[in-house]
Amino acid sequence: MKLSDLGEFGFIDRIARKYPTKNPSILKGIGDDSAVISLSKGLIVLLSTDQLIEGFHFNLEITDGWKLGWKSLAVNLSDIAAMGGVPIGFCLSLGIPSQRISIEFLDDFYKGITSLGERTGVELLGGDTSEGGERLTISVSVLGKASQGKVIYRQGGKDGDNLYVTGYLGDAALGLKLLKKGVYKKGMENIINRHLCPEPRTRTGQLLAERGIPNAMIDISDGLLADLNHLVNQSGVGAEVDLCLLPLSTEFRAWAAVYEPNPINLALRGGEDYELLFSASPEKSEEVDRLSKELSYPITYIGKLSRKIKGIVVKDEKRKIKEVQPLGFDHFRDG
Amino acid sequence: MKLSDLGEFGFIDRIARKYPTKNPSILKGIGDDSAVISLSKGLIVLLSTDQLIEGFHFNLEITDGWKLGWKSLAVNLSDIAAMGGVPIGFCLSLGIPSQRISIEFLDDFYKGITSLGERTGVELLGGDTSEGGERLTISVSVLGKASQGKVIYRQGGKDGDNLYVTGYLGDAALGLKLLKKGVYKKGMENIINRHLCPEPRTRTGQLLAERGIPNAMIDISDGLLADLNHLVNQSGVGAEVDLCLLPLSTEFRAWAAVYEPNPINLALRGGEDYELLFSASPEKSEEVDRLSKELSYPITYIGKLSRKIKGIVVKDEKRKIKEVQPLGFDHFRDG
Repeated sequence: MKLSDLGEFGFIDRIARKYPTKNPSILKGIGDDSAVISLSKGLIVLLSTDQLIEGFHFNLEITDGWKLGWKSLAVNLSDIAAMGGVPIGFCLSLGIPSQRISIEFLDDFYKGITSLGERTGVELLGGDTSEGGERLTISVSVLGKASQGKVIYRQGGKDGDNLYVTGYLGDAALGLKLLKKGVYKKGMENIINRHLCPEPRTRTGQLLAERGIPNAMIDISDGLLADLNHLVNQSGVGAEVDLCLLPLSTEFRAWAAVYEPNPINLALRGGEDYELLFSASPEKSEEVDRLSKELSYPITYIGKLSRKIKGIVVKDEKRKIKEVQPLGFDHFRDG
Repeated sequence: MKLSDLGEFGFIDRIARKYPTKNPSILKGIGDDSAVISLSKGLIVLLSTDQLIEGFHFNLEITDGWKLGWKSLAVNLSDIAAMGGVPIGFCLSLGIPSQRISIEFLDDFYKGITSLGERTGVELLGGDTSEGGERLTISVSVLGKASQGKVIYRQGGKDGDNLYVTGYLGDAALGLKLLKKGVYKKGMENIINRHLCPEPRTRTGQLLAERGIPNAMIDISDGLLADLNHLVNQSGVGAEVDLCLLPLSTEFRAWAAVYEPNPINLALRGGEDYELLFSASPEKSEEVDRLSKELSYPITYIGKLSRKIKGIVVKDEKRKIKEVQPLGFDHFRDG
């Protein structure tokens, strides 16, 4: 059998079913943004890992060492943020094509990764460095902590919950599209940097958890619909997303009007926004608004969870309800 | 500048100097077998990561999925053992050449890695799976714990300490040599498996730490001399190793006599034994002997630490003292 028959998520599901955790102090193994381990009374340890492989996750023709370093940590911090955790430090493994990658490039890489580290209070703990062959291979593991009872899982969504998303959708996917097209115009920097060096929602994830706002949370790495699909499946409810409410940045609207025939599709399915998607009981809506005003980006209501809905439906601009396929990026099918 | 000018350890030293940890709860960042973090009173968290890249760390012509899975976890558990820690779980990232690697191979891989997991009480916590291109790329991070005051570092070696090593030296390097030569004879299984699926000294590391025996400890992954060199450098002492005392297995002696012109060199410099090397005060020698009798493999006295010695010297079979270059495998120079 080939991996492409199962797909990335099919393969992961299969492994999770075959190897469920037995140790009662492991509160969550495979299946959420990070693993959750109860190590002593009141203290939760979080562990998350992500790898970036040249040519599949990044392309050195459109990024540089600094931005790649930043992004390698950002995608992992986003997983800790999605649990409501506080990141502490990270291990970094590099497989380096040493004939092609210079020390100067690597120095920039470390500058980028530690810049985001300093900004978020996260330090380099160790790692492994070796010859890598054809492709630069980056693997980061982030250690985080949380208080008992404050961890937010994907599975807690409830019938009637409001659905919210932080920041803006589609920017990263549009940024990548512009980079690939090779068009570069003044005013595109923000959109492009949303792809190259995304800002993980570390502090916002912590504030949401501290204030007990979300019932369920996930970060948007594979696209809104794909990640919402994980949340609704694990919560045992369905969701309705109002397309008119999707938060689109001013830059996104401006540049998508020129370069993207279907902006809403990009906002729904484009990956790598690294925003937080969460559901909260309607009585928390004032608290969400209050938090949103404390931030430099909005938290936007985009729909509802409902047990009457199977899967995900969208409400279009004519208020018509349509079923959608929650497809995002799958590494073994789309790669 | 090229990586080969600095070498793997030069590069890591450079990074460690540039990015020292500042958070006081991070007791050790780069520079030991694993990172050591104090998360709450009395509780220490350990985090270690290692990657294996096809063609550099393993070769699918001489191993199989099961053994590769086992080894991928073993090399990481060895790092936790070298701190005296208790491993809890691991995250696994795979970059998979999906056109060449079958689901059946991956199933075997997971069987191997979880077999060692079950044996050591370590569970799969999560990970990341994606298309990998030309080479199968494996990155494992292990989370462990320890009690405050019970963690053993590389840096604690003292003048006058006895030097000990668990198990046997050189087996893994000889096993690899036999595999590469393509000779296979009855009775070689143990030697070959010492390379393909080493047994991490998990329980022994914990017992040593619980009983407060070692002053300093490291696992032997790059060869006895190279790893001893880390221990003596970080401890600020020198070491004398008695070549007549190196523990060589019966199989090693038998097959090395036929296939290896310089067995002692293999025992000193051959990597991947994943044994524990530790120093302990002479008054602990009876406790070391007692522990050795509880195990299925010996713990052997091989020399002394001394502040009068600079670096490492060896005593040969004629009781002559010789200086040695503590060279082991360096990925950017020897790879």
